[in-house]
Amino acid sequence: MASPLPLPSDDLGLFTDLYELTMAQAFYQHGMFAPATFSLFIRKYPPDRGYLVSAGLADVLDYLENLRFSPASLDYLRSTGIFNAELLEYLSSLRFTGSVRAIPEGRLFFLNEPVLEVTAPIIEAQLAETFIINQLNFQVLLAAKAARCCWAAPGRILTDFAARRTHGVDAALKMARCGYIAGFQSTSNVLAAQRYGIPPAGTMAHSFISSFLSESDAFRAYAETFPDRAVLLLDTYDTIEGAYRAVPIAKELEATGHRLLAVRLDSGDFADLSVRVRRILDDAGLGYVKILASGGLDEFEVEALVQGGAPIDIFGVGTKAGVSADAPYSDMAYKLVAYDGRPVMKLSTGKVSMPGPKQVFRLRDAQGKMWKDVIAKADEKLPGGEPLLETVMEGGRRTVPSPSLEQARQRFQQDFAQLDDRHKRLRNPPHYEVGVSPALERLTSQVQEQVGSGDLE
Amino acid sequence: MASPLPLPSDDLGLFTDLYELTMAQAFYQHGMFAPATFSLFIRKYPPDRGYLVSAGLADVLDYLENLRFSPASLDYLRSTGIFNAELLEYLSSLRFTGSVRAIPEGRLFFLNEPVLEVTAPIIEAQLAETFIINQLNFQVLLAAKAARCCWAAPGRILTDFAARRTHGVDAALKMARCGYIAGFQSTSNVLAAQRYGIPPAGTMAHSFISSFLSESDAFRAYAETFPDRAVLLLDTYDTIEGAYRAVPIAKELEATGHRLLAVRLDSGDFADLSVRVRRILDDAGLGYVKILASGGLDEFEVEALVQGGAPIDIFGVGTKAGVSADAPYSDMAYKLVAYDGRPVMKLSTGKVSMPGPKQVFRLRDAQGKMWKDVIAKADEKLPGGEPLLETVMEGGRRTVPSPSLEQARQRFQQDFAQLDDRHKRLRNPPHYEVGVSPALERLTSQVQEQVGSGDLE
Repeated sequence: MASPLPLPSDDLGLFTDLYELTMAQAFYQHGMFAPATFSLFIRKYPPDRGYLVSAGLADVLDYLENLRFSPASLDYLRSTGIFNAELLEYLSSLRFTGSVRAIPEGRLFFLNEPVLEVTAPIIEAQLAETFIINQLNFQVLLAAKAARCCWAAPGRILTDFAARRTHGVDAALKMARCGYIAGFQSTSNVLAAQRYGIPPAGTMAHSFISSFLSESDAFRAYAETFPDRAVLLLDTYDTIEGAYRAVPIAKELEATGHRLLAVRLDSGDFADLSVRVRRILDDAGLGYVKILASGGLDEFEVEALVQGGAPIDIFGVGTKAGVSADAPYSDMAYKLVAYDGRPVMKLSTGKVSMPGPKQVFRLRDAQGKMWKDVIAKADEKLPGGEPLLETVMEGGRRTVPSPSLEQARQRFQQDFAQLDDRHKRLRNPPHYEVGVSPALERLTSQVQEQVGSGDLE
Repeated sequence: MASPLPLPSDDLGLFTDLYELTMAQAFYQHGMFAPATFSLFIRKYPPDRGYLVSAGLADVLDYLENLRFSPASLDYLRSTGIFNAELLEYLSSLRFTGSVRAIPEGRLFFLNEPVLEVTAPIIEAQLAETFIINQLNFQVLLAAKAARCCWAAPGRILTDFAARRTHGVDAALKMARCGYIAGFQSTSNVLAAQRYGIPPAGTMAHSFISSFLSESDAFRAYAETFPDRAVLLLDTYDTIEGAYRAVPIAKELEATGHRLLAVRLDSGDFADLSVRVRRILDDAGLGYVKILASGGLDEFEVEALVQGGAPIDIFGVGTKAGVSADAPYSDMAYKLVAYDGRPVMKLSTGKVSMPGPKQVFRLRDAQGKMWKDVIAKADEKLPGGEPLLETVMEGGRRTVPSPSLEQARQRFQQDFAQLDDRHKRLRNPPHYEVGVSPALERLTSQVQEQVGSGDLE
C-alpha cells in the first residue's frame, strides 16, 4: 500500500530524474567536482504570451537549503543495483553548497533571459535540475496566465477558484500563490490561504441548495449563518428564478441590519444573465449586492464580458487559469553554460544556448517605461541598465530573506505598469525587445566555432 | 518565510475550498447531519478522447482515512473570524465515517458514469469534494493520455520523462503512477520509482556531454561508469556525428564483454535521423544497440513515427503527456445525488445531473468484447451485466486493501483489450455506448418534475 500521506515532505533528494544520479556517479568516478553554472530560461513564448512573470523562486531556495538524502532514500538507491558504494557515501552527506542568482519573484522577464542561474559543484547543480524546472516552469506559466486574467478585467476583482482543477495539491497551492502575485485578490483554497497569508474567499455549492427542500430555504439558512458574507448561488435550477428568490432573502437581511454580499452565476450566458440579474437586484433596491461569475472563465472570456459591459463585479477564475489551459507547458530549459571556468554551449537543432554566466539589463525610456532588455555576460556593466539578476544564495544559504508575498505582488504591479500595453494584448502581442550585448555575442561565436570544430582545448 | 518544505503532509484538512467549510457551518447550525451521496463523473469527453481510465482512487482513500484538522489548522480557521466555536469544536474531532463505492483503478469508464460515489454525513462528504476532484480529475486525464501514447506505439517501449514538466511535485509522482497503470514501462522520476515500485530509467543530459572537453570523452566516461546500461545522447552538437562517435565507444565496450544499451535522439527530425542512425549502427555491427527518442513527443507524433516505420525502440514521453497538453482539464463534477434518502439533482444549463446513488453495468458480446454500459440505480440488477462500482470503504476504513499498482496495470490491459479499436482512435473516436436503465430514467423524470415545479416535499 502507498504511504497514507499523499505527498512527500522531508525527503526530496529522490525527487530527481534518474540520469541526474547516474551522471553524478560518472562525475564522481571521473573526479569532476569543479563548479558548474546552469542557466534557466524559456526559448519560445507559449501561444499569445508577450511577457513572463518570475514565480517559484522561494520554493527553489527552500529546496536547495534542505536538499539531502535520507537513509531510506539511500537504501532505495542501493537496492536498484545501479549505484556504487562510493557514490552512496558521497550522497549521504551531500548538501547544496552553491550560489544562486535570480530575477526576483513578481518581476517580468522575457524570452531567452536567464530567470535563474545556479553555480555549484557540478554534481549538486545537476541534481537540482529536475526540481528547479518542475517548480519554476509551471509557476511562471500560472503567474503569466493570472496576470492576463487581471489585465482583461480592469477594476474588477478576481479570485482563485482553481483548487479542484489544478494538477494535484502542490499545483493548487502554487496557483493560489501565483495568482496573488499577479493581482488576484483572494483564493478559495484554505490551505493556501493559511500558508501564504492570502485572503480566503468562497460562496456556496449547488449541493448546498439541493440538500434543502427548496432553494429559498437554502438561501435563508445560509444567510442566517453568514448574515454579512453570504453569496447566493443562483443557477441550481434556473438563474432568473434564483435571482427573484434572492431578493426577499436580501430584504430579510436588511431588516436585521445586514446586507447580502453577492449573488453568483455559474452557468449559462453570463453576458445576458448578468444584465438581467443586475436589473432584478436594482429594481428591488439592492444596488449594493455584487454579482460574481464563475465557470470555465479565462482571460479571453473575461475580456469579452468586460468589454461587452457585463455588470459582473467579481470573477471566480478556476479551471482554465489553474492549468494555464491554452499554454500548459513551456520549453523552459536548465542548461550548462560554464564548467570549471570554461564557457560551454549546445548546438542541438533549434536548441542553441548562449555560453557563460549572464546578467540581464533593463533599459527604460525618459518616461520610465520599459524600453528593452539586454542579455550580457555576468561581469559586464551596462550604463543606465538595471541589472535584474540578484544574488539570493551563497554557500547554500539564502543571502537575504526571500521577499514576502506582498512584496512580490507589489513588484509585479510596478513592473507591469512600466510595460507597454502592446505586449499585454491577449492575442499575438508583439515581442518586447531583448538584445544581446556585443561581448556576449563575441563569446557565443567564439565558443560556437570551437565546439563546431571539435576543438575544445 | 514559507515553510522549508514545499508540500503539506500531515494536515490536509485545510486542503479544501472555503465554501466547503462555510457550508459545514450552515449545515451544522441547521442540524443537517443526515447522510448524503455524492457522485463523481465527467460530462463531456476532452478533445479526441473515446475512453477514460480510472486512476487516483488510492490517494482518495488515503486522504479519507487520514482526514482531520490539526490544532494549527483550527487556530487558523479561528483567526479568519468566519467560523463559530461550535463548528471549530466539531471539526476538531471530525473523521471521515462514510462509505465509498468506486470503479477500481485501471478500469475503463465512460461519459456520465460515476467513477466514485461517496456516502457520508453531509458535512464530511462535502468537505472531501475539493481533494477528491483535485486528485481524480487530473489522474484520469494523465492515465488516458498515457494509454493513448502506448496505443500509438504497439510493441515499443514507453517511459515517463515528465517529472520536470508536470505541474508540481504531486503531479510528477502521479504522472509516473498513471503512466505505469496505462502501460509505460518505467519512469525517470526516482521518488516515484521508490514510492510506487516502478522501474527507474534514464539516460544522460546535454550538460554531461558539454562538461567534458569532447563528446567522445563524455561518452567514454559514461560507458566506463555504466558499461551495461549506457544510453548515449547524440544531439548535443550534431546527431549524425554523435552517432559516428558512439560506434567506437560501443566497440570498446564489446572488447571488455559489455554492450552499449542505446543511443538517444532528442531534437531534429526523428523520422529521418532514426533511419540514418540505425544504418550507422547496423553498418558497424551494432544491431543490438537500441534507439531512444525523446523531446516534445505525444501520441500523435509517436503514431506518425511508428506508422512511418521509424526504427525507434523506446519513446521517452515527457512534456505533453505530463500535462495532458491537448486536454489539460475535464469537467469532472462531484454532485449531490441524494440527501437524507431523498434523490436530488440540479438543472443548471448544460449541467443537468441524474439523481440517486448509481451502479454502472458493463455488457459484453459473445466474444467477450465490451458492447455497452448501462447506468442504473444502485439497487438494480442487470442480468449479464458486470457491476463496475465496488464498495471500497465503509465506516471510514478500507473494506479491502487497495489493489497493487501491478494489479491496476493488469486491470487496464484486460479492459483495454476488450474495447473495440474504434474507440481507441487518436482523432475523433466514436462514443462508446452508455445507456441509462428505464428505472433510472423514470426516477430522473420524476425528480426533474418535482424540482422544476418547486415541489420538493
